[in-house]
Amino acid sequence: MSRRGLIEYAEASAEVRAVYDDIMATRGTDWVNNFWKALANDPQNLSRIWCSIKQVMGPGTLDPLTKELLYVAVSVTNGCRYCIASHGAGATARGMTPAQFGELMAVIGLANETNRLAIGFDVPVDEQFL
Amino acid sequence: MSRRGLIEYAEASAEVRAVYDDIMATRGTDWVNNFWKALANDPQNLSRIWCSIKQVMGPGTLDPLTKELLYVAVSVTNGCRYCIASHGAGATARGMTPAQFGELMAVIGLANETNRLAIGFDVPVDEQFL
Amino acid sequence: MSRRGLIEYAEASAEVRAVYDDIMATRGTDWVNNFWKALANDPQNLSRIWCSIKQVMGPGTLDPLTKELLYVAVSVTNGCRYCIASHGAGATARGMTPAQFGELMAVIGLANETNRLAIGFDVPVDEQFL
Amino acid sequence: MSRRGLIEYAEASAEVRAVYDDIMATRGTDWVNNFWKALANDPQNLSRIWCSIKQVMGPGTLDPLTKELLYVAVSVTNGCRYCIASHGAGATARGMTPAQFGELMAVIGLANETNRLAIGFDVPVDEQFL
Amino acid sequence: MSRRGLIEYAEASAEVRAVYDDIMATRGTDWVNNFWKALANDPQNLSRIWCSIKQVMGPGTLDPLTKELLYVAVSVTNGCRYCIASHGAGATARGMTPAQFGELMAVIGLANETNRLAIGFDVPVDEQFL
Amino acid sequence: MSRRGLIEYAEASAEVRAVYDDIMATRGTDWVNNFWKALANDPQNLSRIWCSIKQVMGPGTLDPLTKELLYVAVSVTNGCRYCIASHGAGATARGMTPAQFGELMAVIGLANETNRLAIGFDVPVDEQFL
Repeated sequence: MSRRGLIEYAEASAEVRAVYDDIMATRGTDWVNNFWKALANDPQNLSRIWCSIKQVMGPGTLDPLTKELLYVAVSVTNGCRYCIASHGAGATARGMTPAQFGELMAVIGLANETNRLAIGFDVPVDEQFL
Repeated sequence: MSRRGLIEYAEASAEVRAVYDDIMATRGTDWVNNFWKALANDPQNLSRIWCSIKQVMGPGTLDPLTKELLYVAVSVTNGCRYCIASHGAGATARGMTPAQFGELMAVIGLANETNRLAIGFDVPVDEQFL
Repeated sequence: MSRRGLIEYAEASAEVRAVYDDIMATRGTDWVNNFWKALANDPQNLSRIWCSIKQVMGPGTLDPLTKELLYVAVSVTNGCRYCIASHGAGATARGMTPAQFGELMAVIGLANETNRLAIGFDVPVDEQFL
Repeated sequence: MSRRGLIEYAEASAEVRAVYDDIMATRGTDWVNNFWKALANDPQNLSRIWCSIKQVMGPGTLDPLTKELLYVAVSVTNGCRYCIASHGAGATARGMTPAQFGELMAVIGLANETNRLAIGFDVPVDEQFL
Repeated sequence: MSRRGLIEYAEASAEVRAVYDDIMATRGTDWVNNFWKALANDPQNLSRIWCSIKQVMGPGTLDPLTKELLYVAVSVTNGCRYCIASHGAGATARGMTPAQFGELMAVIGLANETNRLAIGFDVPVDEQFL
Repeated sequence: MSRRGLIEYAEASAEVRAVYDDIMATRGTDWVNNFWKALANDPQNLSRIWCSIKQVMGPGTLDPLTKELLYVAVSVTNGCRYCIASHGAGATARGMTPAQFGELMAVIGLANETNRLAIGFDVPVDEQFL
């Protein structure tokens, strides 16, 4: 049940095609990745999630590359192989170098380590941080 | 057992003081936060973790603010209250604005959401991402 | 070491066969899924886990479909591909429709998102909730 | 940095008040919980998250109580104390009995256990589940 | 809803008292910790979980201290403050020294770090490990 | 981007070869596993992580088998398939029997279950544990 059929453009409803068209226009690409094709089984959720992604990952106060790196950091911490691959590709498309990828992974790894040390030792938050 | 005593500078061994001095010199501060004071019960680990932090969070190909934001992203995903507070403060010290903090949290939240959609639907990785 | 041999009925001990027989009788099926065949390498744990599943997932104050949906919610959050597949199938067998599956995933995704917003902003619990 | 000021109705902008009004009208309450007051520091995200919650947790193919139980299951698995309290209260308001709460927790606990057994033994997914 | 009343011995039913008595007899103590007093609101689950703990944490092929250390490792990784405290105390009661506690935390932290490096780089499993 | 090329000994720089040589000498093996070959794309991190592993997993107050079991416990909890395989093999090489592996998994599973019960019921920490 968990692996759903992927809805291709040719078989999609007008409602779904409208979202696909917006995804491609926003990204300047001529294809839609599998994540959206799986979500398209529920057009209402497809639309809601795409609107969220478009708003949150669009222009703002953090630059696009930084947002992709953050996405990778969360995805690695959660062990989401799909999102590591897709947002790793997104970061590369926005200029991430191999050296930056290595440094990104070093930060993610170390944060996961010190998180557990702080939790395990039950370190009280310094008043300077409050 | 998990909440350990915090080793203050005045009572620290020469070995621990040397690390504290390096932390303060590297950061340009006159105090050491509780995380290090808890780790100082094991001088060997204190030294090892500080060396890792100094190397990974020091100058490299990602700017210091971006690294702090990544640290917050991992810490929020793992639910580490101490590290959210300490690296949130670190990000603020490096110029994070309230608007950027809000945007950071929006990206973290959304990544946690879409991670589960990709996992739950068992979405196959697109060949373009490999 | 981690992937263990699967103990098939034909080669199982009497002790393991008794559990397999009870699984099939309880579920009204003529086969046992791989989870149990892996656990069967430790007959004592096989028996303990099966007894827990039988008690917890059996008749109670929550209906069987709701329990399967809850199982999927936990499994997706933890990224357990096996359990998503097996309990997704269990939910389908108890009547989950494709629309319900989509809605289930929407709730799971959103809960994972707002969990991190509440954690990241360190929102104090309202007294009305205590 | 992580604990933000809570925006009370009296001090909120018209944009934020409009969301607060919609939350209270939708829920039939005369107060807004702290989660929204923290999010209100970023009106755009406040609006986006509220729209998602309203759509996902509103009328659909799963009943309201089931959705609250699912929310609790995810929140417990992630260790989000705020969301356990708020959605636990939401479930109670929709009729969850103490016996159901106990049964809910039993399912959540057991799913977390068997998730790790399936992962640790690397159990291959049965073809019947694909 | 989530914080439940704690059932004290004096007010407990005969069924609950029998479990409390067995906990104290098995552990050689004259008190029962809060975890069981919270579970006691659901006598059936109290009994089931206690039986599992008694079986799994009792005599076997791993020594009692090792089992407590493993419990702490899981609890720190999951961020369960209660279980870190209770099983940290359990490990101390079975002879864990401060130096061992520091070493335990070092292993837990490092494992959390390298887990993410292996996941993030999507390292293929060596055939020697299969 | 996430799956990196594996740096084989024959093509490695002198700096990387020095680490590989130390890994093999320390372990008494004539091969290096893929984890290190992926890390070798960032020689500085390769060196840093190897030094940490060598220090933390080397002689200390916990015996080598216990450390491998702890590594497996964390890796199973995080769902890191690579690390479960590699440290499962490490535990086997240090004498873990099939019965111990089954018992290890039982402890890991149960800890994951009771962690969620303690979190879900928001059990207050007993003063005896502080």
